[in-house]
Amino acid sequence: MTKSSLKDCTGLHVVAQTPFRADGALDLDSIDTLSAFYYGHGARGLTVLGVSGEQGKLTPDECIATAARFIAAANGHRIIVGVSSPSLAQLVTVTQHVMAEGADAVMICPPRGTQTDDDLMRYFDEVFARIGNTPTVLQDFPVHSGVKMSPSLIRRLVEAFPQIGVIKEEDLPSITKITKLREELGTNVRILTGNNGLYLPQELARGADGPMAGFSFPEMLSGVDDLMRNGDREGAHDLFDRYLPLLRYEAQGEWGIAIRKEVMRQRGAMECAALRAPGPVLTALDRAEIRSMIDRMGLEFKFDNRSAA
Amino acid sequence: MTKSSLKDCTGLHVVAQTPFRADGALDLDSIDTLSAFYYGHGARGLTVLGVSGEQGKLTPDECIATAARFIAAANGHRIIVGVSSPSLAQLVTVTQHVMAEGADAVMICPPRGTQTDDDLMRYFDEVFARIGNTPTVLQDFPVHSGVKMSPSLIRRLVEAFPQIGVIKEEDLPSITKITKLREELGTNVRILTGNNGLYLPQELARGADGPMAGFSFPEMLSGVDDLMRNGDREGAHDLFDRYLPLLRYEAQGEWGIAIRKEVMRQRGAMECAALRAPGPVLTALDRAEIRSMIDRMGLEFKFDNRSAA
Amino acid sequence: MTKSSLKDCTGLHVVAQTPFRADGALDLDSIDTLSAFYYGHGARGLTVLGVSGEQGKLTPDECIATAARFIAAANGHRIIVGVSSPSLAQLVTVTQHVMAEGADAVMICPPRGTQTDDDLMRYFDEVFARIGNTPTVLQDFPVHSGVKMSPSLIRRLVEAFPQIGVIKEEDLPSITKITKLREELGTNVRILTGNNGLYLPQELARGADGPMAGFSFPEMLSGVDDLMRNGDREGAHDLFDRYLPLLRYEAQGEWGIAIRKEVMRQRGAMECAALRAPGPVLTALDRAEIRSMIDRMGLEFKFDNRSAA
Amino acid sequence: MTKSSLKDCTGLHVVAQTPFRADGALDLDSIDTLSAFYYGHGARGLTVLGVSGEQGKLTPDECIATAARFIAAANGHRIIVGVSSPSLAQLVTVTQHVMAEGADAVMICPPRGTQTDDDLMRYFDEVFARIGNTPTVLQDFPVHSGVKMSPSLIRRLVEAFPQIGVIKEEDLPSITKITKLREELGTNVRILTGNNGLYLPQELARGADGPMAGFSFPEMLSGVDDLMRNGDREGAHDLFDRYLPLLRYEAQGEWGIAIRKEVMRQRGAMECAALRAPGPVLTALDRAEIRSMIDRMGLEFKFDNRSAA
Repeated sequence: MTKSSLKDCTGLHVVAQTPFRADGALDLDSIDTLSAFYYGHGARGLTVLGVSGEQGKLTPDECIATAARFIAAANGHRIIVGVSSPSLAQLVTVTQHVMAEGADAVMICPPRGTQTDDDLMRYFDEVFARIGNTPTVLQDFPVHSGVKMSPSLIRRLVEAFPQIGVIKEEDLPSITKITKLREELGTNVRILTGNNGLYLPQELARGADGPMAGFSFPEMLSGVDDLMRNGDREGAHDLFDRYLPLLRYEAQGEWGIAIRKEVMRQRGAMECAALRAPGPVLTALDRAEIRSMIDRMGLEFKFDNRSAA
Repeated sequence: MTKSSLKDCTGLHVVAQTPFRADGALDLDSIDTLSAFYYGHGARGLTVLGVSGEQGKLTPDECIATAARFIAAANGHRIIVGVSSPSLAQLVTVTQHVMAEGADAVMICPPRGTQTDDDLMRYFDEVFARIGNTPTVLQDFPVHSGVKMSPSLIRRLVEAFPQIGVIKEEDLPSITKITKLREELGTNVRILTGNNGLYLPQELARGADGPMAGFSFPEMLSGVDDLMRNGDREGAHDLFDRYLPLLRYEAQGEWGIAIRKEVMRQRGAMECAALRAPGPVLTALDRAEIRSMIDRMGLEFKFDNRSAA
Repeated sequence: MTKSSLKDCTGLHVVAQTPFRADGALDLDSIDTLSAFYYGHGARGLTVLGVSGEQGKLTPDECIATAARFIAAANGHRIIVGVSSPSLAQLVTVTQHVMAEGADAVMICPPRGTQTDDDLMRYFDEVFARIGNTPTVLQDFPVHSGVKMSPSLIRRLVEAFPQIGVIKEEDLPSITKITKLREELGTNVRILTGNNGLYLPQELARGADGPMAGFSFPEMLSGVDDLMRNGDREGAHDLFDRYLPLLRYEAQGEWGIAIRKEVMRQRGAMECAALRAPGPVLTALDRAEIRSMIDRMGLEFKFDNRSAA
Repeated sequence: MTKSSLKDCTGLHVVAQTPFRADGALDLDSIDTLSAFYYGHGARGLTVLGVSGEQGKLTPDECIATAARFIAAANGHRIIVGVSSPSLAQLVTVTQHVMAEGADAVMICPPRGTQTDDDLMRYFDEVFARIGNTPTVLQDFPVHSGVKMSPSLIRRLVEAFPQIGVIKEEDLPSITKITKLREELGTNVRILTGNNGLYLPQELARGADGPMAGFSFPEMLSGVDDLMRNGDREGAHDLFDRYLPLLRYEAQGEWGIAIRKEVMRQRGAMECAALRAPGPVLTALDRAEIRSMIDRMGLEFKFDNRSAA
């Protein structure tokens, strides 16, 4: 893998959870298990410190330490680090540190309030004046950021800033936006999808290059992607539909992340399922609900770390 | 049915589409077919002029005409009319007219910017000073309205304003909020759910009294509700899961409404699937995608209006 | 005055208050007195049903009735009617009615959520497909609307839609935006200013064509405009500074409107100072504060309607 | 001065600018000059790293370094450090460091999205569980934060968390909110005001304990406060009105901060007027406008650092 390039950035890139201890401290050791879990289930790379990686709850120092540990455990896989911040200085500092640690790329979502096409161009002018040639994933996620980017503006950005090699597309309906982006951008840029994978088969059919999402059964995400790539559309849908009840259940914002971490803990991916406070805490009722859903699905549950790549 | 009461407001209340002609004019005639479609698939009542009923695109006169036609076609079913507006005068005028026409209740979501508990109490003070004893559904839908209401505030509202007989709960995760609301409110108030029914089995298990949502196959919504009511949880989940791929596909904001209307048109529920402009317009690709999904599901598709109740 | 043109739309256009009775009913009769007050203090025209005209609290019927009465009392002055609405149908209906009544132009601020340059172009495509050649004031007021428009986008709009003859510019800092707009637009378009006139001398010096604002002493707004037009910059500043303590006091959102209406009532401009509820209600302390400010300023207070044009 | 207490926190507390070099690096050396400038013009203390201190553009390390330098230059004056952050971990880390450096208190504005009374109580539960007895200024600034707090909620907060010794009140109209807060809170809590001091005389008359604001002529802010304290209301208004044209000119958001820094640079308060990029950059026209305003006001301009306390 050419570290400096996002040209071949296709296939599953899991948006990784960040593991914490019960007291809220970072659990760096679990990153090794977690990485093995992701790679053992088909991830070609990881996006660490995304929204569902609880990036917003960390200090910059913690961000750098977390990314460094994922990089150390990458074992040849691509590591993309979320560095979005209302503070450009913080974005730049974290970028410099994680690239120095060996990250492959950063992911940036423009900050709330960047609201006209010209303001967006200027924002990335400022960004790239500071981070230079750093390979970059542009995150299009208006529900979270409040920033809307039209397909024509995204083309302007991609043309002005060749550092942008991937669009993480999660502006709803992502399905139709991917169609429009493919018309605007051709195939020079990779488009990966988000939104917890909830529209994955259709997104892939419309030209996406793979999922960049999180799910407690990443083998579904990679499996659907492989099947679609091999032209087995029916097989892809069958696989997707089998997991859909749980996928939909996890797609409930921060509370869904709590669910996802709990399932992943039960699967052996990490020690402790806690989100860093303040955040949702699962009740006995929630846990019973999870258990009932898993049982219904009849899924192969336990992950054996020893079998991971 | 006691017109003046929401006490027995349980079971499926479909959030109804508003039918338009291709040129954007109201298609009042289709309201009769549409009503038959809903009632023929298990709706005990309708909520007309909700968000997905495109209320925000109508003038007050059009709102009144639309509601009046649904009321005329109600055939003993309950009609709840969405009257939310940034203008209190408009809310009051429409309420007075539709109640005079024979509506059973109105639904109100507090307007954007009503942001503290005290402001919310004051807002409903002003509302009920003007609409008196009108039975009211309180809509809790922060993703759309920007207004957050805590369980304790909802209890204050329910205690202060006995007109509020139903909470339409769609603050995500609605699942846990329903649990909290049941703890706060007991069983004196009905809780119906929204969010396109995407979490319906869990919501019912946690104490909701039925769905208040839209879907192109309302027989699934009523069917799941009936099965849960009869204690057949597995059956309910089986039914729900069968439709989930399409349910999820329709849950894509205004574009999802365009999908829903197209499916419903194909099922014979109305003449024309157009949303009032400005709004999404389906492409050939979109239509093919819908067709492929319906085919996969192997659903009984066509609705025979003659068999409707 | 050519009714159909905004080319000569310069000088003071007061953003008019809407008079209500104590019970919240429209006080249409006071519109005659109020119009005389405005024209007697230098207004060349009025913008009725703007934000501070409490447009958002009226029904469309009330909007039309209010505009009609201002038009009847116009006496050769220009009447611009605010028609902004989240509902395009409502915007169109009110536009058609008020233009039929004899309004000179409408004012439109794009609705919340219209967030990319392309979306803004599309929005006005939809608008002008419906209201045709109606002369239009484009309101640029992001603090209120949440919509940001860059100078280059405003040029695109002005070039695509010659109906737009005036920009009401109140994006802070309006001072520098006026400079940029003049560079983009040349002098083909009129630029009037808002923000309660709080930056009027600087705005005029940078190329604005006059104020479109409200103040309880409109003679200051017209006076500053006249002095600047005649090249007496020092005189303009002296006049402005004399009224500034009160001007600043009135520039406090909706509460400032309550102040303004109370001062105008005391000056004989209308019968009752009430805002339509829900809205702020002045206390004895507030009234004493106003009185003390007026006394300090030593202003000629009473307006003699008989001397009005 | 008792370091641990905010009980006597009255009088002018300037919201301090953060000085940068032209290249955007922190200019820590200018903090000494700047501190002398503030104290020489009547400041009893400083609030560093507020919104207009460009806190949002710094990394946590830079925040700590900046605060430490202000603390080193405090010379017995009170130093309050703005620590608000969407990241609670960052808030806590910065709080611990600056309190260890010798800060007197921190200032906290709840983060965007904290929207119900219960959520606000929970947020501060989480905060004070981590920062313990740290004396705290609660910032009520909804225009910036999007968070609204009612007077009754502020009382709940003050009663639950005795660490809150000061309310920085800038919810418009701050005038009437101060009246309501005094009714709710009595005189147990200090209320300082913000909004660039634009409503200072009225705010003090209604019970505020002093300004916590920035202005390029802080001697006006301290002077008005002293005169009001001594019962010379007319004198206070006279002094205030004299500076009002410039005060209003500086009250233009981030661009106003650029103006303020330029005037302060000309007065000798710091080396370089630059804001950290991205941010507004003054043009020749802007500078001429400033000059003209200063000339009109006939102000004593130059600050002699040697005379500072």
